[in-house]
Amino acid sequence: MNEYAHAAPAAVREKIRAGALTTQTSGMCLGYAQANLAVLPKALAYDFLLFTQRNPKPCPILEVSDVGDPFLKTIAKGCNIASDIPKYRVYRNGELTEETENVEHLWRDDLVAFLIGCSFSFESELLEAGVSVRHIEEGKNVPMYKTNIPCVPAGVFSGNMVVSMRPLPYDQVVKAVNITASMPRVHGTPVHIGDPAAIGIRDLSKPDFGDAVTVRPGETPVFWACGVTPQSIVMHSRPEFCITHAPGHMLITDIKNTDLKF
Amino acid sequence: MNEYAHAAPAAVREKIRAGALTTQTSGMCLGYAQANLAVLPKALAYDFLLFTQRNPKPCPILEVSDVGDPFLKTIAKGCNIASDIPKYRVYRNGELTEETENVEHLWRDDLVAFLIGCSFSFESELLEAGVSVRHIEEGKNVPMYKTNIPCVPAGVFSGNMVVSMRPLPYDQVVKAVNITASMPRVHGTPVHIGDPAAIGIRDLSKPDFGDAVTVRPGETPVFWACGVTPQSIVMHSRPEFCITHAPGHMLITDIKNTDLKF
Repeated sequence: MNEYAHAAPAAVREKIRAGALTTQTSGMCLGYAQANLAVLPKALAYDFLLFTQRNPKPCPILEVSDVGDPFLKTIAKGCNIASDIPKYRVYRNGELTEETENVEHLWRDDLVAFLIGCSFSFESELLEAGVSVRHIEEGKNVPMYKTNIPCVPAGVFSGNMVVSMRPLPYDQVVKAVNITASMPRVHGTPVHIGDPAAIGIRDLSKPDFGDAVTVRPGETPVFWACGVTPQSIVMHSRPEFCITHAPGHMLITDIKNTDLKF
Repeated sequence: MNEYAHAAPAAVREKIRAGALTTQTSGMCLGYAQANLAVLPKALAYDFLLFTQRNPKPCPILEVSDVGDPFLKTIAKGCNIASDIPKYRVYRNGELTEETENVEHLWRDDLVAFLIGCSFSFESELLEAGVSVRHIEEGKNVPMYKTNIPCVPAGVFSGNMVVSMRPLPYDQVVKAVNITASMPRVHGTPVHIGDPAAIGIRDLSKPDFGDAVTVRPGETPVFWACGVTPQSIVMHSRPEFCITHAPGHMLITDIKNTDLKF
């Protein structure tokens, strides 16, 4: 059990802000939603916001900051998005130039922060309902794959969807669809159930990101739109400047996973 | 029964485009969703898109056009949004300056069209399920009220929510909540059930827009977020240039109401 499993989100964010906590956030503040981060200059923000509107499954927005303001107002009260994530990645013209624990010195008046829902939230609901989540059972990162499913383009942003995969026994598939249907702000229903080749995936044992997991006899792979999609799309367009969270180092919000149900 | 009740949306849009049909669209193309229109210059489009993202109940976006492109790609194939609505209103610096059946001569390279879901769609589902819709029974326009419920501001846009009201027998309230819960792209669940004073409405018999309807003994008023909200918010900010549909003269889309369910 993580040392911060039952800590309050605000307390953990304070520790992170002080530089006293720089690890991955998986397993911290159980029950609370964690969020992906993409920070872009205002010049690209309209195209990106429109991209998320046109592609809500891979890009479910939890909050968009006001232009130039690093403080969030809704999902994490008092949160400075430039200091409250344990580790950031900084990209210039699409190249990773820096990995750092604080980006306050890089903040600009024209930056907009996008906080995007994460599958951690629906996984906790699946587990709660007795649905197996293989990569958690096996202590691995979820397997993620590039697909041939095109996102709807918006301005400078275009590309294919990235999906995450969880193998399920046939008799748990409908339950998993129903549970995730009630959580559209964290990717919602699966985008595909069954044959990986139908969405352009050649080999389940070779994920593009994360780790391969065991698919047992009597199980079918179930694919959900993945929050890696917006990062992959943004990088593809080689923006002049961009900040993201470092993989696994997410924002811990004040929103309970159960509040992401409607 | 409207002459075009069972016509195909594309055929009706063609008649409208040719100037051969300039009436209100209520009752046309039964089963197909109709949409509200707001056209803004790109300079205001980011703030408006962010406003709709922060206020999805009053502003459920069905489609956003590409900048400068009057042709829609998703909800109405081949539709020229500058000619395919029977009547438009043109505003300059917040003042209504023109009501016209075509805005192609006013189109600009920097305009963005926002198509916003409309309660017509969920009303047809309510009727289908045997839930009464009073203003339809009484042949009136739905009563709409200004409330004290603040929208979440975004950039230059801020203001309170406008709601529509349908009185329901107590034993139909839960059914109506469940039906509209499944249609978040056309306003979703009610924002309030019961005492009008709780949301700042003084007198149900004096709606701010539309017509008053009968509330019978044993009925409670049920309030949904209304698509008039974004228009009211936009006008309040007095934009340099703006085009909307004229009241009741909506875009008839190719999307079936049932496809707005998830």
